[in-house]
Amino acid sequence: MKRISIERNILEKNNESADFLRELLKKHNCFSINLMSSPGAGKTTLAERMIESLKSKYSIAVIDGDLDTTRDADRLASHGVNVIQINTNGACHLDADMVKKAIPDIGLDNLDLLIIENVGNLVCPASFDVGTNKNVVLLSTPEGDDKVKKYPTMFNVADVVLINKMDLAKFVEFDVSKVEREIKDVNSKAEIIQISAKNGEGIDKFIAVIERFIKKETQ
Amino acid sequence: MKRISIERNILEKNNESADFLRELLKKHNCFSINLMSSPGAGKTTLAERMIESLKSKYSIAVIDGDLDTTRDADRLASHGVNVIQINTNGACHLDADMVKKAIPDIGLDNLDLLIIENVGNLVCPASFDVGTNKNVVLLSTPEGDDKVKKYPTMFNVADVVLINKMDLAKFVEFDVSKVEREIKDVNSKAEIIQISAKNGEGIDKFIAVIERFIKKETQ
Repeated sequence: MKRISIERNILEKNNESADFLRELLKKHNCFSINLMSSPGAGKTTLAERMIESLKSKYSIAVIDGDLDTTRDADRLASHGVNVIQINTNGACHLDADMVKKAIPDIGLDNLDLLIIENVGNLVCPASFDVGTNKNVVLLSTPEGDDKVKKYPTMFNVADVVLINKMDLAKFVEFDVSKVEREIKDVNSKAEIIQISAKNGEGIDKFIAVIERFIKKETQ
Repeated sequence: MKRISIERNILEKNNESADFLRELLKKHNCFSINLMSSPGAGKTTLAERMIESLKSKYSIAVIDGDLDTTRDADRLASHGVNVIQINTNGACHLDADMVKKAIPDIGLDNLDLLIIENVGNLVCPASFDVGTNKNVVLLSTPEGDDKVKKYPTMFNVADVVLINKMDLAKFVEFDVSKVEREIKDVNSKAEIIQISAKNGEGIDKFIAVIERFIKKETQ
């Protein structure tokens, strides 16, 4: 019982920081998304696609969470946007306070879109609101078509689920209609889009959704 | 500072339970392994291969950790071994106390091999000793060849690293020599084996390693 109450306090404190962040970003008219998935499901490649599709219209920054290394941040910075790497030193998720500390280095004046790439983990990041407007969850086809109901917390918090690596689906006997059905069971409101971040399939549909979100959430 | 000391206490308490479990298993001459990986990297398929290869020689039981569902346990039980499903209800890893609670349902008399399939997560399970003799970590090729140094804690605790889904390596530009080099940088003692749990490639090598461990750890 003691451990449970400690965890609840941590989550409550995090939610307060997340609400503060969301208000701060709203004041600056900055739309933000939180990318979450298992390791290697394609978050960084997706963020690269987003930057290339949107950087001519919007001012973009990325906060990149990883246990260690600057590998993802280096890839993203090569696209000419401001990238802040947060190394969690072993921690399994970003939290709102980590993001808050990165804000002064980003600067919110004239920033239109903040992309947060969370630590690769299909469990813990789902419980820690990082103050963004929307959660985007990637499931990659080689992970298998049985994952949604095994990891329901993550799919439950998703505003958009991207079924990524559709180019590999045929090699791994991935039943996409089963997965879409189970996502709807767990979370009837999530938008579902089949993509291949690698070859670009479906990216235009995702970008249209993001632009619709931006128009709705900002003036 | 407060949060860190709380976490340390949880880990210390877990280590005590894990040591107790290891002694208990040793008294019963039961060898045990802890399978860890990202979601969908092939732990269950590997466990099925292990059961099929070893069940004629050894009495085997499996403890299967998942946030939700009995999907993996159902697959494993169909191979005719005793399987206990632990649903963590959202928790991101098994711990030694969860395993301890499952022991009465397994029974250790005449049990030779206990396989623990941890929750799919490349971060948190690395910090929670579950009382086994050896840690086996799977990395699947579609996750990408950049993962070892991004998730060093997990590769650091591995006794064996299995590079799984080698049948997909050619479709995902996976540089296996880079990965092997980085595993050696992080953990020079880990044995590294390339496998495909799906088509059986390399499984004989892994089974030989497991049998060598069993001989060494039991009388």
